[in-house]
Amino acid sequence: MCGIVGYVGKQKASAILVEGLKRLEYRGYDSAGIALLENNDIEVMKKTGRVQNVAELIYERDMGSQIGISHTRWATHGEVNDSNAHPHMSWNGKLALVHNGVIENYEGLRRFLEGEGVEFLSETDTEVFANLIAYHYDKEEEGNSVDRLLAAVRHSTTLVEGTYGIAVICTDCPNDIIGARKGSPLCLGVGNGENMIASDVSAFVGRTQNVVYLDDGQIVHISEDDFSISTIGRESVDPVINQIDWKIEQAELGHFTHYMEKEIFEQPTALENSMRGRFSDDDSTAKFGGLNLDPVQWRQIDRILFCACGTTWHACLTAEYLIEKYARIPVEVEYASEFRYRNAPLDKNTLVFVISQSGETLDTLEALREAKRKGYIVLGITNGVGSSIARETDGGIYQHAGPEIGVASTKAFTSQILLSGMLALHLGRMRDLSFGDGREMVAAFRSLPGLVSTVLDQADKIKEIAEKYADFSDFLFLGRQSMFPIALEGALKLKEISYIHAEGYPAGEMKHGPIALISEECPSVILSPHGDTLKKVISNIQETRARKGSVIAITSAGKDFPQDTADEIIHIPQAHDCIMPILATIPLQLLAYYIAVKRGCDVDKPRNLAKSVTVE
Amino acid sequence: MCGIVGYVGKQKASAILVEGLKRLEYRGYDSAGIALLENNDIEVMKKTGRVQNVAELIYERDMGSQIGISHTRWATHGEVNDSNAHPHMSWNGKLALVHNGVIENYEGLRRFLEGEGVEFLSETDTEVFANLIAYHYDKEEEGNSVDRLLAAVRHSTTLVEGTYGIAVICTDCPNDIIGARKGSPLCLGVGNGENMIASDVSAFVGRTQNVVYLDDGQIVHISEDDFSISTIGRESVDPVINQIDWKIEQAELGHFTHYMEKEIFEQPTALENSMRGRFSDDDSTAKFGGLNLDPVQWRQIDRILFCACGTTWHACLTAEYLIEKYARIPVEVEYASEFRYRNAPLDKNTLVFVISQSGETLDTLEALREAKRKGYIVLGITNGVGSSIARETDGGIYQHAGPEIGVASTKAFTSQILLSGMLALHLGRMRDLSFGDGREMVAAFRSLPGLVSTVLDQADKIKEIAEKYADFSDFLFLGRQSMFPIALEGALKLKEISYIHAEGYPAGEMKHGPIALISEECPSVILSPHGDTLKKVISNIQETRARKGSVIAITSAGKDFPQDTADEIIHIPQAHDCIMPILATIPLQLLAYYIAVKRGCDVDKPRNLAKSVTVE
Repeated sequence: MCGIVGYVGKQKASAILVEGLKRLEYRGYDSAGIALLENNDIEVMKKTGRVQNVAELIYERDMGSQIGISHTRWATHGEVNDSNAHPHMSWNGKLALVHNGVIENYEGLRRFLEGEGVEFLSETDTEVFANLIAYHYDKEEEGNSVDRLLAAVRHSTTLVEGTYGIAVICTDCPNDIIGARKGSPLCLGVGNGENMIASDVSAFVGRTQNVVYLDDGQIVHISEDDFSISTIGRESVDPVINQIDWKIEQAELGHFTHYMEKEIFEQPTALENSMRGRFSDDDSTAKFGGLNLDPVQWRQIDRILFCACGTTWHACLTAEYLIEKYARIPVEVEYASEFRYRNAPLDKNTLVFVISQSGETLDTLEALREAKRKGYIVLGITNGVGSSIARETDGGIYQHAGPEIGVASTKAFTSQILLSGMLALHLGRMRDLSFGDGREMVAAFRSLPGLVSTVLDQADKIKEIAEKYADFSDFLFLGRQSMFPIALEGALKLKEISYIHAEGYPAGEMKHGPIALISEECPSVILSPHGDTLKKVISNIQETRARKGSVIAITSAGKDFPQDTADEIIHIPQAHDCIMPILATIPLQLLAYYIAVKRGCDVDKPRNLAKSVTVE
Repeated sequence: MCGIVGYVGKQKASAILVEGLKRLEYRGYDSAGIALLENNDIEVMKKTGRVQNVAELIYERDMGSQIGISHTRWATHGEVNDSNAHPHMSWNGKLALVHNGVIENYEGLRRFLEGEGVEFLSETDTEVFANLIAYHYDKEEEGNSVDRLLAAVRHSTTLVEGTYGIAVICTDCPNDIIGARKGSPLCLGVGNGENMIASDVSAFVGRTQNVVYLDDGQIVHISEDDFSISTIGRESVDPVINQIDWKIEQAELGHFTHYMEKEIFEQPTALENSMRGRFSDDDSTAKFGGLNLDPVQWRQIDRILFCACGTTWHACLTAEYLIEKYARIPVEVEYASEFRYRNAPLDKNTLVFVISQSGETLDTLEALREAKRKGYIVLGITNGVGSSIARETDGGIYQHAGPEIGVASTKAFTSQILLSGMLALHLGRMRDLSFGDGREMVAAFRSLPGLVSTVLDQADKIKEIAEKYADFSDFLFLGRQSMFPIALEGALKLKEISYIHAEGYPAGEMKHGPIALISEECPSVILSPHGDTLKKVISNIQETRARKGSVIAITSAGKDFPQDTADEIIHIPQAHDCIMPILATIPLQLLAYYIAVKRGCDVDKPRNLAKSVTVE
């Protein structure tokens, strides 16, 4: 979370930095700020709230500066106010720093610096970092000012515990920005007569398509015409320049009001792209080029562990149902944040899978590293090409769902479920699924974009329902079997963007506690697909309505689900079980979206949330 | 859920039935009713709300009848109103029936009976059952009226799909009650010149300590001086008479205001009883007499699957952390309601454990049967001696926590965690735990009652905090590692008895969604024990407070947790990790209890909930 952008070149830095911040704003927007360097002086402007607030300050000042750093913040330490916003100046006015991450030993460092006479203006760990570098810069004696700044950054990074992506400018170095990363992403945009660093390529895509992804423990120095990368241990690093294969237009709104809305409606295309070229010629199984395991290795696996966070954790729970059902391989799902500290006993033939939309989710990345450290093969599913997770896994699947900007994940989630289902097919066809079973599943996957479109066609009806229920402050979401994780996801979506307290439960658990919440004040969304458990779910609906709770049912059951069974009924197509979780997700996304819009919420930038959680 | 009591003898039936209903009221209390038989006529009195409502009607009528059946209802089909309450009369006034369970094919049966000219007064599946028996009673031609009634019950039970525990009286049989069960518990109290049937022994304990537990598929006939049991298939059954080893005083309130309060404060004793006699002579391991596995069989096990529902599911999640940590055996936990329909792939060396306080939880019982059907060894942990789960498992551990009457489970939960920890010790000592490790754990378990008492001593302070926060309508509960299931349980407790929307999350997941809820309107309860993750949890607290959310912290951290870290701090002792989950539970129980009392909620009989969930 938090976004960093730094620019040095021949253009007016302020405009470029504001544009970059706006593109990163989805990563955090408690406050934003900018530091511009001109005439050996650093000018800092910062402001709580959205980027636009600080942009107004900046445009007013209209500085000609061609170098600067900027930041959009998601608070970890200290309240959200102007003085806690980044950039932070060092006490002596020598340098400014923006920082993404958390410095865990900042209190000790602060006490040390205070002992040395350094004064502090804010409560943040970042100011400690800035002062630490400035303090060491003063102590360095060798080389020119850029060498000294590099040495001071190097020295300071060895002293801090925690995670960081940083960018630093110094009044003595009028053409230089230093960056460093550990645990928080940072990349370098290589331009023509200009260079940029940023926490995310979307900050500069369009200005340049050439990107170098930094690794943990690396330090980068950029100037107008040059850049160099080295490690904290002073070793020089040969940069690998990658090409970004998407354009900024793809991340722009078009005729939609919000990115989330756009991304919901993009799902037929995103799903199409996720499966393109990934079925065998005879349409009987799925194939993935990047998994890097041969059939003999796949055969050895007798258990799969998935680790992820948030929405993606729900995708993993769905993967559990799909893989256990079709491939009959036992699957476990853990919260990445729990797994990384837990030392769980794992069988030696366990395959570990991590899933992350951005590929930068810190908890997931650390879970990956924990599993690799223990000698397990770790594969990944990620949408972020070239991301840390993509680079550190032994193999993986790219989602190809296109950039996802809305903080509440939609198309990335359904794409993850699709790919999990295709993985189930792939593994199932190596075990007990017949050629015919495989053909049926492939046909189902191929039909998915069309079927999703038919659900999207009901948007107006769902909007009506949403508006009718928008004023409730509590919701329950219930489902059984593979609909249980979808219920969790439906609840999370609503919670994230409308701040309604929505909670998901397996429908069978309702009577073991959550039913206490049911009243006229708390409607329920109940997933009621056709099949084995329909009768049981209808019983749950009756119990809910017997207690005067309204029920919005999502069903594919047709005539087995009479019109008077629920207060509102949204129909989804009756299709192969392997795609039902995706079809059931679409109405829940639309419901959450329209409810949030009706409540006047800032859908794409919900309160307190950030897109890609790169701190713990 | 729902409670059934039937009496036949020499005393006035109404008083005995009302007393029994009051004792069963914790199982369901949407409405209650009674049917008394006198002078070949059946009189039905029923009323929505608490048992006291119908008791007033009954006392007013003051009938001398010495035979009757009664019911306290928890609605499944149909609204809560007088006509949907039990008992239900047959259309021809011949018989009355009370029913616990759900008849799934009632619509088809109703259509059939309507075709035969039968009229219906209510929307319930139970009335269909009553009319079905009456219809067949009319058709039977052989034997006396009792034989015909038995035959009609037998015939009808073969026609219904679903679950039932029933009691029936008939105007032609002035001294007879017929009962039958499938899926819902029913037992017989054998008295002196009187007999009773009930869904739970607590209805008659004190009048008699002699109980016969019926099995599924059995039919019982009682009269004043005699009883007989047979199967639906007409085979006669030899009854096993058990002795109930507790007295009704144990289930009575004493100086406490509510059963929940009493049971919270009983925990030192309940925990003492749960562990009594269960440590080896050298205090280095735990021993359990009833598990029925020899060391060689234990050695074969390379995975444990726990199934349970509700609060007990949280105890299982805690068991996962404890067993994986101390015994290094991988553990999985499933919702019983999901497992029973899911056909999960299990390794052949998997041991299945089911946990249920009552031992009658239907979903858990069915999960047990599913696992047994597949040939797995299934063990149980239950507080209900002689319960269905106790009888059907291959072995198990009785909790000996004493009767738990409060609907919100407290002492049964901590007793389940204690026994899970002792199981972890037992299994660990067979694997990698040393003699010294074992002695430390035993010492920790032995210290538990005393440590729990020191937490209970803080009740006044916790009450003050509770009263300060009682008016909020949303809460988050957060914890990491073994504190995560305790956070879930703390949230469930509050939700169950105060109807506050409280939700638990692993603290590391906060940033992946639930943080959107944080505001001045939504306080958080954050479990912050000493140890590895304390720093991480403190970071979570800072993030919460940075967004103006108040924090109530439960901590054992001492000076590493300065007074200004949270808005409210409740201290718990710093003890061995294996008992920390129990120590952390106590303040959450008290918090939920005092908040509910402050809000004026009916703590022991919360809205919509029933104690023992014996329907799906």
